[in-house]
Amino acid sequence: MMIVMKPTATEQEVEAVIERVESVGARAHVVDGSELKVIGAIGDREHIARIDLEGAPGVDRMVPILKPYKLASSQFRDGRRTVLEIAGRKLGGEHFAMIAGPCTVESREQLLQTAHAVGDAGAAMLRGGAYKPRTSPYAFHGLGQEGLRLLADAKQETGLPIVTELMDLRDLDDVLEVADVIQIGARNMQNYTLLTEIGRSGRPALLKRGLSATLEELLMAAEYILKEGNDAVILCERGIRTFEPAYRFTLDLTAVPVLQELSHLPVVVDPSHAAGRRDLVGPLSLAAAAAGADGIIVEVHPNPDAAICDGPQALVADEFAQYAERVHAAAAVGGKLLSEYQSVANPIG
Amino acid sequence: MMIVMKPTATEQEVEAVIERVESVGARAHVVDGSELKVIGAIGDREHIARIDLEGAPGVDRMVPILKPYKLASSQFRDGRRTVLEIAGRKLGGEHFAMIAGPCTVESREQLLQTAHAVGDAGAAMLRGGAYKPRTSPYAFHGLGQEGLRLLADAKQETGLPIVTELMDLRDLDDVLEVADVIQIGARNMQNYTLLTEIGRSGRPALLKRGLSATLEELLMAAEYILKEGNDAVILCERGIRTFEPAYRFTLDLTAVPVLQELSHLPVVVDPSHAAGRRDLVGPLSLAAAAAGADGIIVEVHPNPDAAICDGPQALVADEFAQYAERVHAAAAVGGKLLSEYQSVANPIG
Amino acid sequence: MMIVMKPTATEQEVEAVIERVESVGARAHVVDGSELKVIGAIGDREHIARIDLEGAPGVDRMVPILKPYKLASSQFRDGRRTVLEIAGRKLGGEHFAMIAGPCTVESREQLLQTAHAVGDAGAAMLRGGAYKPRTSPYAFHGLGQEGLRLLADAKQETGLPIVTELMDLRDLDDVLEVADVIQIGARNMQNYTLLTEIGRSGRPALLKRGLSATLEELLMAAEYILKEGNDAVILCERGIRTFEPAYRFTLDLTAVPVLQELSHLPVVVDPSHAAGRRDLVGPLSLAAAAAGADGIIVEVHPNPDAAICDGPQALVADEFAQYAERVHAAAAVGGKLLSEYQSVANPIG
Amino acid sequence: MMIVMKPTATEQEVEAVIERVESVGARAHVVDGSELKVIGAIGDREHIARIDLEGAPGVDRMVPILKPYKLASSQFRDGRRTVLEIAGRKLGGEHFAMIAGPCTVESREQLLQTAHAVGDAGAAMLRGGAYKPRTSPYAFHGLGQEGLRLLADAKQETGLPIVTELMDLRDLDDVLEVADVIQIGARNMQNYTLLTEIGRSGRPALLKRGLSATLEELLMAAEYILKEGNDAVILCERGIRTFEPAYRFTLDLTAVPVLQELSHLPVVVDPSHAAGRRDLVGPLSLAAAAAGADGIIVEVHPNPDAAICDGPQALVADEFAQYAERVHAAAAVGGKLLSEYQSVANPIG
Repeated sequence: MMIVMKPTATEQEVEAVIERVESVGARAHVVDGSELKVIGAIGDREHIARIDLEGAPGVDRMVPILKPYKLASSQFRDGRRTVLEIAGRKLGGEHFAMIAGPCTVESREQLLQTAHAVGDAGAAMLRGGAYKPRTSPYAFHGLGQEGLRLLADAKQETGLPIVTELMDLRDLDDVLEVADVIQIGARNMQNYTLLTEIGRSGRPALLKRGLSATLEELLMAAEYILKEGNDAVILCERGIRTFEPAYRFTLDLTAVPVLQELSHLPVVVDPSHAAGRRDLVGPLSLAAAAAGADGIIVEVHPNPDAAICDGPQALVADEFAQYAERVHAAAAVGGKLLSEYQSVANPIG
Repeated sequence: MMIVMKPTATEQEVEAVIERVESVGARAHVVDGSELKVIGAIGDREHIARIDLEGAPGVDRMVPILKPYKLASSQFRDGRRTVLEIAGRKLGGEHFAMIAGPCTVESREQLLQTAHAVGDAGAAMLRGGAYKPRTSPYAFHGLGQEGLRLLADAKQETGLPIVTELMDLRDLDDVLEVADVIQIGARNMQNYTLLTEIGRSGRPALLKRGLSATLEELLMAAEYILKEGNDAVILCERGIRTFEPAYRFTLDLTAVPVLQELSHLPVVVDPSHAAGRRDLVGPLSLAAAAAGADGIIVEVHPNPDAAICDGPQALVADEFAQYAERVHAAAAVGGKLLSEYQSVANPIG
Repeated sequence: MMIVMKPTATEQEVEAVIERVESVGARAHVVDGSELKVIGAIGDREHIARIDLEGAPGVDRMVPILKPYKLASSQFRDGRRTVLEIAGRKLGGEHFAMIAGPCTVESREQLLQTAHAVGDAGAAMLRGGAYKPRTSPYAFHGLGQEGLRLLADAKQETGLPIVTELMDLRDLDDVLEVADVIQIGARNMQNYTLLTEIGRSGRPALLKRGLSATLEELLMAAEYILKEGNDAVILCERGIRTFEPAYRFTLDLTAVPVLQELSHLPVVVDPSHAAGRRDLVGPLSLAAAAAGADGIIVEVHPNPDAAICDGPQALVADEFAQYAERVHAAAAVGGKLLSEYQSVANPIG
Repeated sequence: MMIVMKPTATEQEVEAVIERVESVGARAHVVDGSELKVIGAIGDREHIARIDLEGAPGVDRMVPILKPYKLASSQFRDGRRTVLEIAGRKLGGEHFAMIAGPCTVESREQLLQTAHAVGDAGAAMLRGGAYKPRTSPYAFHGLGQEGLRLLADAKQETGLPIVTELMDLRDLDDVLEVADVIQIGARNMQNYTLLTEIGRSGRPALLKRGLSATLEELLMAAEYILKEGNDAVILCERGIRTFEPAYRFTLDLTAVPVLQELSHLPVVVDPSHAAGRRDLVGPLSLAAAAAGADGIIVEVHPNPDAAICDGPQALVADEFAQYAERVHAAAAVGGKLLSEYQSVANPIG
């Protein structure tokens, strides 16, 4: 932590800061510039974290030097990337994984038709919501337990591992029965109770970035899960809130290489919710894969016009194979292993 | 709902849209402009909500006309404002209420000293956190049940009603024993499970605006509480996330008159978290009160330098009376009843 | 400047940074923490400014310590505030000034009627646009030279000093003939050619904050004017761009006390453009004045419904006296000299 | 234009709106919903533009239906895309063009070395700044006329067309002597004087999106150029301002397909300024090309560590060929003609 003093800070104010730094067990190191003083506080992360001098007399500002997360940081694994293996599918490092399926589980037929389409096209996992967070209390909130049962059926029939969202801890046991990966929605990114309990469950988690969460806050949220001993966290960029009214959210693809630099955790991208429109999902998926994302999570429906929710952003199941082929080609350009997709598709030519 | 067609939309595409509108039980009304067509969908809010044509063939965009919230809207009470009476203190309409106290409850002495200071200066309620949401899993998370017990003591000794935060539903019963108003933090604004259960509890709720929540989303979150039959919701502006790095959050005071126009619910402002610095709390409190806010919720500590969390933004208890006097004067300029504060302070002088 | 090294930085990378720092004539000071190194660069502002190591090998990030502006900074005047005196009207420090008038000059009658109304109500200056920046090339762009002539007439008749905008340097001489204060619009805040030439003209300037300009960028833009020897710069907050769709811009009132802390320059607020709606102008003006703004610049029209541009945000000239009285009362609460307004209005009651 | 009335609007207020609509020569069309009325105003774009009822009595809001730009819109060319041919290089439609070169022209050697490197690797144009807009008045502002002379030399020696920025209209004639494409910087996107004069010059223009400009505002700025009869405008996405502090700007790649849908103009992406760091330029360039951008404009330097400005974001000239090869491969995945790059590089295999 560097503590930048105001140019007008008095000798006493500097002394008071040094005292405070030393009172938490850290060492103070004064850098005396021509126009102002900076005090470096050196010590353990825990000690440093207890120095709260923002706004104290004579203090201009605090500049944190150490990252506030530890288990999520690249250094924690000495630069080696986490590669998850979920029911035989690899994600992270050189491995690219497509996660696809309906926004919400509607019926057995809808789910199975989609599951077969995406599985045949080389998707690594099946996504589908049984519990749906909705802005409006009057909207459809998912089939609940019935949805979970249908997901279990789809898993059995296709062998695809399941990604599904948990919103309410009271549903945790039910979700654990079917989910290979538990999805945490953007609005719950800082629901610390949920993060902690999913951490304790030990089940892999897909953690969506909040609508206005900084990358540091996303990694701190991951840290809540990791610190419970669960080291299988997938980070997910899904669009952030900006001033631009032309689309629902602004997909932030710079987050992909930057998160991969800051953290060892795999990073996937959700183009469906950011775009909100089918015709944008293609270009954004190609862009995400070319940027080096470790995977894409995308919405697919056999008949989007009849979908209960978010139909306009769903890819059409019949067209998914062609889409997947192009995305895999982009992932290859982005540096992922080409061989893995060649068994299911011929990416370039 | 108005459905704006693209200039290139075909006759069939227009027909398909009309069909979809009618299929949910609404009436379609075509406005034929010189360059494009607009289709108005007329009917019940519930029917209209089921028309999801964003991105459908030929559709340029959907323009919602009706507000998606109902119980929270001004129309629901025909323009009459909600005035809450909490343990004899009024909030809303002509009534301005100061809610003050420590960020987090630390000790009996800290809490009582603060409670007496703010009560004597005319504060209407005492705030204090027993459970604290923290970005870092390594930070102090509050005294928990012990904190609630201290709040109960302070209530008994000073008669001030208590505002305290609930984060985890498993603590609901404990919190209900002491809280006159349950605070819902900004990060939980869209924690729908929490909203619903607090709605069911019937206890007044203070709902903080999420860091990047639109006013419409805030009102939709309030709707989750209201629809359970709990009509005592206080909206709270506490700063939004913008590009400006010079302060923690950007306090959005335009939200005050606009929320008061859109909704009958009272609107309070939290200047402490937005500013993050004591010296800004004064000007922002005056501004909020002059803008017509129904109250201020502010952090106060007997000795901020020794505070466990957020000390730099806490007002000093000894200086609170002077602060409160100026804020009440600003509230009077903003249109609130002057007489109420004159018993405790002489606003203008 | 502090240069934070990555935890993985090698000894050579640290050496290279030290070498670079010393190569520009600055001193390097190494702070050796337990997990990483920070290198302080100490020297003249000009030397430091030439160290560009962001992204260099081993460098995590650069943390600027000195503010990049100098003439605009509070330290430059040792904490004394700039008080401008424009045709006898004071602005800054303890002095609050209302600047009012039509968005655009339309006719002799419209302008004079407004000028008399605002002058009688205690406004310190008359605003009015002869050249209007418009998002659309097809919109009305002002009366030009004819507008300037009408402003000159209004000045002669009422004695009010004139604030008017300059967009195109080719109009500089014409504008200098009538303007007591030259307004620089938000879209031109970083039009460096314009800033420099207005600086050279020596005429007081009212500089509007860009739609997404940080406070530091606003002060750097002021620095362009100040460095030409023109020390009469008024900063103007007029709303920033955020994600919130409910209003045109989000008025950032935290900017008022923070700019007053960072700089000695006066700070005024434009509530009209931020709100875009007459009914919000009142509450926002009160809030700005209570926050301690040195002035308000606001749009007024004798008959807003017939205004050529921005009518819906204009105050009605007939109602201006009542508005001004309340705003002056709020300014008094915000700490401005009360006596000044008592001659024109009885602020409290 | 649709005018949405408030639920509380009176019959007189509705009548007043209809009158106003008809007074500008448009037709009013009332849609009578169960809870409120919407009035459609039908007529010429110019008539409609003069209806300014936002905030009028009884009016809830105005919903524009027609796009405010015309020459820039897709409809203006019936869906055909503009393909520019600049000194034999094609840009737009199926044609992808790499524009590369130093941030600022520093010396003959620096410029020519870079020009040869990028030309050999298949770049279509050479970029280089002679006039540099800088946030600080104390920073280096470019070599000026000497820089233009060096650009002319480089053009003669390599045959590459030149892209260079104009900031001050007084330099227009000088810039016209060497520039094949005139660049308009992000901070000047709404400098209407500059836009108009560049429009009149007839020279192709590369228009950068402002830091917080909406796509609609970018297209309106293009409209200023187009309406002067200059139809050679290249739109450029270069990162927008968001709350995220981890990078300088947030590159908005959703803008690429959306601009291509709204407009016939080519869209290029500048990854250098958004990222501010060399290691991010690669992934972002691949992403932009895969998203379907019509080109990339990127900074290259023979020895970035010695660059006068923005060295850390410049690609190293020696590594440019390898970079270009990957970007061309990504462009092919994004749908551009493969054959064009095969002469200079073997993109996939």
